[in-house]
Amino acid sequence: MRFTSEQRLEDGVLEREFTLGEIPGILWTSGSAPAPLILVGHPGGLRMMYPRLVARARHAVAEGFAAATIELPGAGGRPRSAVTEDARADLLRALEAGEPVGDGIVDRLVLPLVDKAVPEWRAALDALLPLPEIGGPVGYSGGVISIGIRLAVVEPRISAAVLFAGSFVPRAVFEEARQVTIPLQVLLQWDDEGNDRQQALDLFDALGSKEKTLHANMGGHTGVPSFEGDDANRFFARHLK
Amino acid sequence: MRFTSEQRLEDGVLEREFTLGEIPGILWTSGSAPAPLILVGHPGGLRMMYPRLVARARHAVAEGFAAATIELPGAGGRPRSAVTEDARADLLRALEAGEPVGDGIVDRLVLPLVDKAVPEWRAALDALLPLPEIGGPVGYSGGVISIGIRLAVVEPRISAAVLFAGSFVPRAVFEEARQVTIPLQVLLQWDDEGNDRQQALDLFDALGSKEKTLHANMGGHTGVPSFEGDDANRFFARHLK
Repeated sequence: MRFTSEQRLEDGVLEREFTLGEIPGILWTSGSAPAPLILVGHPGGLRMMYPRLVARARHAVAEGFAAATIELPGAGGRPRSAVTEDARADLLRALEAGEPVGDGIVDRLVLPLVDKAVPEWRAALDALLPLPEIGGPVGYSGGVISIGIRLAVVEPRISAAVLFAGSFVPRAVFEEARQVTIPLQVLLQWDDEGNDRQQALDLFDALGSKEKTLHANMGGHTGVPSFEGDDANRFFARHLK
Repeated sequence: MRFTSEQRLEDGVLEREFTLGEIPGILWTSGSAPAPLILVGHPGGLRMMYPRLVARARHAVAEGFAAATIELPGAGGRPRSAVTEDARADLLRALEAGEPVGDGIVDRLVLPLVDKAVPEWRAALDALLPLPEIGGPVGYSGGVISIGIRLAVVEPRISAAVLFAGSFVPRAVFEEARQVTIPLQVLLQWDDEGNDRQQALDLFDALGSKEKTLHANMGGHTGVPSFEGDDANRFFARHLK
């Protein structure tokens, strides 16, 4: 891991950009005492997502956490994969034609992304956890739910997760969901245009964790109320501190 | 309203029992500055419910609220109604026989209770709001959801409510639910033995409020996690302070 830039934001949060091999990432810390790390998930495109990511990260740092994120495979400036691009084109065609999005498209769109992204997030943990500003258990927050579920199953250093019940979940992920045992808080937007509410409820039901809470709010995909940021921090405070 | 007893609990909360005509009730305050009032709902039986009610009330007072509750019609020492007793007997027969509980039974069990209880809670508000320890908007928390919904529709002094998605909701209440406009937080126990999960989700969907959040947790009817008490207080702090 190589730090490429460093700045203090106006509230004193230390923001450092880094690269992990070819993967760009951002780390936010208070710059002082070691703090439990929250991995800030997202749907890809760090530059585009930056305003929302930095808001979540600053909120987390203010509550005594460190926060970090990395770019997803095929997003931002990272090389595209032909399989994913084909699947994305098929998805757009199906949506524009008003046709149902078949399992085949969803599998081709999501599964290779999960297979590639999850080892990258784990490599980021390897690089981040030895830093003196970071200490204690790790949380994963938001982002592509299929990545969050795979991480929760395979990465024992992740102790709790806040997941966002988005759409296009491969059937195979429902099976993985049953193997999750860490505490979860799952966000669902009740009127999400591109989201199948029943599928989201079924996925919540499938998750194997004994402690899981669903927070469903009104409104569309980007309408998550700001108080859910506080709720996520309190959830992580219960489980990471 | 006539106060019949008064004691200081060990954390300094002032607990006063009262009667409102024939209806017994309990008021909990800090005894000092005026505070927004939370009406503490329950399924009936103040004596039996007391340990849980006083825990909720002390938690609320610690967060800067006053709290009050009254006995439900036909519960505790209050006169039984023949209609309700007949409906309850029919309900038990159906449950013991493993038969579906028909709409007729649910209507006879719940609607007369709502019709009688709601004016009583409003009369309690009339009596409580002039007290110097109480000031500001009012919240309703928990209890029979059909009572909470009717109160939210007809009582303009109630500004926000935390409802518990229990079972046996008359069809007519789904219609009333569409008229609710105040902010809501709705608790659902995902594995509630005596509760129809789909009906609870449908009722959440039917509620007319623009701001409503569903908190679904694992476990049975009495298994609501303790952190939901904190969440309820924060919800009321957002809307009553």
